[in-house]
Amino acid sequence: MAAEIVNPRSDSNTGLEGDVEPVNSAGSVDTVGSDGSVDSLDFDPAFALHRGGKMAVQATVPVRDKDDLSLAYTPGVAKVCSAIAEQPELVHDYTWKSSVVAVVTDGTAVLGLGDIGPEASLPVMEGKAILFKQFGGVDAVPIALDCTGVDEIVETVVRLAPSFGGVNLEDISAPRCFEIERKLQERLDIPVFHDDQHGTAIVTLAALRNAAKLTGRTLGDLRAVISGAGAAGVAIAKFLLEAGIGDVAVADRKGIVSADRDDLTDVKRELAGITNKAGLTGTLESALAGADVFIGVSGGTVPEPAVASMAEGAFVFAMANPNPEVHPEIAHKYAAVVATGRSDFPNQINNVLAFPGIFAGALQVRASRITEGMKIAAAEALAAVVGDDLAADYVIPSPFDERVAPAVTAAVAAAARAEGVARR
Amino acid sequence: MAAEIVNPRSDSNTGLEGDVEPVNSAGSVDTVGSDGSVDSLDFDPAFALHRGGKMAVQATVPVRDKDDLSLAYTPGVAKVCSAIAEQPELVHDYTWKSSVVAVVTDGTAVLGLGDIGPEASLPVMEGKAILFKQFGGVDAVPIALDCTGVDEIVETVVRLAPSFGGVNLEDISAPRCFEIERKLQERLDIPVFHDDQHGTAIVTLAALRNAAKLTGRTLGDLRAVISGAGAAGVAIAKFLLEAGIGDVAVADRKGIVSADRDDLTDVKRELAGITNKAGLTGTLESALAGADVFIGVSGGTVPEPAVASMAEGAFVFAMANPNPEVHPEIAHKYAAVVATGRSDFPNQINNVLAFPGIFAGALQVRASRITEGMKIAAAEALAAVVGDDLAADYVIPSPFDERVAPAVTAAVAAAARAEGVARR
Repeated sequence: MAAEIVNPRSDSNTGLEGDVEPVNSAGSVDTVGSDGSVDSLDFDPAFALHRGGKMAVQATVPVRDKDDLSLAYTPGVAKVCSAIAEQPELVHDYTWKSSVVAVVTDGTAVLGLGDIGPEASLPVMEGKAILFKQFGGVDAVPIALDCTGVDEIVETVVRLAPSFGGVNLEDISAPRCFEIERKLQERLDIPVFHDDQHGTAIVTLAALRNAAKLTGRTLGDLRAVISGAGAAGVAIAKFLLEAGIGDVAVADRKGIVSADRDDLTDVKRELAGITNKAGLTGTLESALAGADVFIGVSGGTVPEPAVASMAEGAFVFAMANPNPEVHPEIAHKYAAVVATGRSDFPNQINNVLAFPGIFAGALQVRASRITEGMKIAAAEALAAVVGDDLAADYVIPSPFDERVAPAVTAAVAAAARAEGVARR
Repeated sequence: MAAEIVNPRSDSNTGLEGDVEPVNSAGSVDTVGSDGSVDSLDFDPAFALHRGGKMAVQATVPVRDKDDLSLAYTPGVAKVCSAIAEQPELVHDYTWKSSVVAVVTDGTAVLGLGDIGPEASLPVMEGKAILFKQFGGVDAVPIALDCTGVDEIVETVVRLAPSFGGVNLEDISAPRCFEIERKLQERLDIPVFHDDQHGTAIVTLAALRNAAKLTGRTLGDLRAVISGAGAAGVAIAKFLLEAGIGDVAVADRKGIVSADRDDLTDVKRELAGITNKAGLTGTLESALAGADVFIGVSGGTVPEPAVASMAEGAFVFAMANPNPEVHPEIAHKYAAVVATGRSDFPNQINNVLAFPGIFAGALQVRASRITEGMKIAAAEALAAVVGDDLAADYVIPSPFDERVAPAVTAAVAAAARAEGVARR
């Protein structure tokens, strides 16, 4: 497939679709070795590491001899199959279904690369799968689909669902991602979670809660402005409202999303109805005057005077990669708390802090879905890991903090039980 | 899903669909513990072994720290994605695509249990997956589909295909299995292989070649009668013709498949046109008079007088499970070589002798499909493993003979190159 590298910042796809992590400027001429051969590519450590893929399947039961085979395969397996046919819920006990998540993409919004197609998205999906395993103990299988229609994707995932305990949607471009997620949630009784939306929103909320705590405020005291009305921006706005933020306005490349605009998609029109109590119109920059929080999930650059116009003790979460919307050095001149998506600055907003524990917790109790309450519980648990060490350069834990996944897992499992969606 | 356990020996589904391995009479009342609880089930060693499933995913690259993450995930992964977008064939080098096979079923013809649905089929698909790994070093992922229409299944697998290096169709009932396989082979450029057909046929041919060699005959000298016109029976008949057998006739439950019958499905009508040179009609029993080979993939019982009526030095391959069509003790009274599907008798015809090496060889050279020549090469390699130890009770190696998979792998890879379907 000769995929064209398109600009992911197209109007229909504003907002950072991939995980908020540093992304090389890719699609450039130097990505393929001088002669384009695998040998020349492998001089690059990233290529060398990816050689042959990053994951494998392993048997967790022995198959050494006839006796092993007669238990793990025929004839022993037949009675297990029959038992599941009689008592369908036993599939969770006697197969890997409740351990395994499908990481589903159509390759349309991969990292900062855009619509590169299913095959080219596979290295990211494998990466996601091994993060699931490493951080959450969750088995995950990359499923990159050769179709992009909403109904095609929905129908395909519904047909696959018997084999999986959950579905992690990944790198599917807006606005299709919203409809695909909603339809799948309606049709399936297993968790369906678009990480680019909710993972980003959960980690952002955790950081925001701690920033507010640090500066003696509550969420209700804060007015936030989000740059980017794609998957991440929309989800963050809704989630912050859910969590009780004072006000939030969202800007796309044409300015603040407000009810008086006549160029809004359905998703943005809905957004205009629930956000922007202050009735702001015009540019992102003008909306920042007096704002308490900037959340960037768009790329682009925010001019320094706009940052300077924010309220005293502001928070700047400039999560675009590789270039934050506001460079941390600039942000620190005006803001009380600064976060980015990059691992080389403090306070990295990274989805890996959320999705492994979210699914581990949901699978542990065989949740039928992931509720708002479970997401809020995940954010609170994540924020709580920081505990008494809370500081301006430590409002969110490191991805490698081993307390994170167990804390999120336990909180999500407990919330699922409390909300009545747990099945054990 | 409250699946009904149906009789897999229905007319449209004659023939042994599952692997030819001993199968307990399942679907019986004693498969679920006295109180139906998981704890009571786990007193049974088969259930205890299946608890939690039989497989897992593992990372094959380290993710210990920020540096690892920046190579395996962002930002390092972006340049690998971009390279694949520019040179699509690199997906085979830098992802697990060429190591991983989808084990696809719709749960309609599972072992001897019949149409038990996708969830209840999962223990078999996981079993298959771990056999792929154990015997062929091939990663495999169970994909049990919640749909049974030919076009639905085909379309779904086509959409999944970017993520996989091959497709092993499994336990899909006849006659849909034939059309599904054909359509998928037309649309995909990766190997698509219905193991219940071709795996069984390959192992049968290997055993038959050695039996012929042992008794100083060639395939061209032999007239065979197959009991069962389902997936296995049809595939064995075609494959033996391909390999040069003298004549072969196939019987379904209404008798020998012959052109004069007016009750034939399309598949059986095609079969009538290419088999049964002798123009036999009537019962299986009458067709056995003077026959050199009996191949049973149907269940049912062949009466002793019919076995006695076979030619001098006959071969009886009675592969039904758990009860061979002819008990080996009876068969030995008349036959020179006896084989079954059971592990507790000599000469076990077991698909696991073929499918791991078939896919390992095809994936090794990135074959675009599995040709007749590759299947013939697999059968010959499998037969050759027996070598000079050839004897009446040793015409086929043991599944645990460590020489088998490497021999089949090498033969299949070489044949793929010779036939021009290898891509490296």
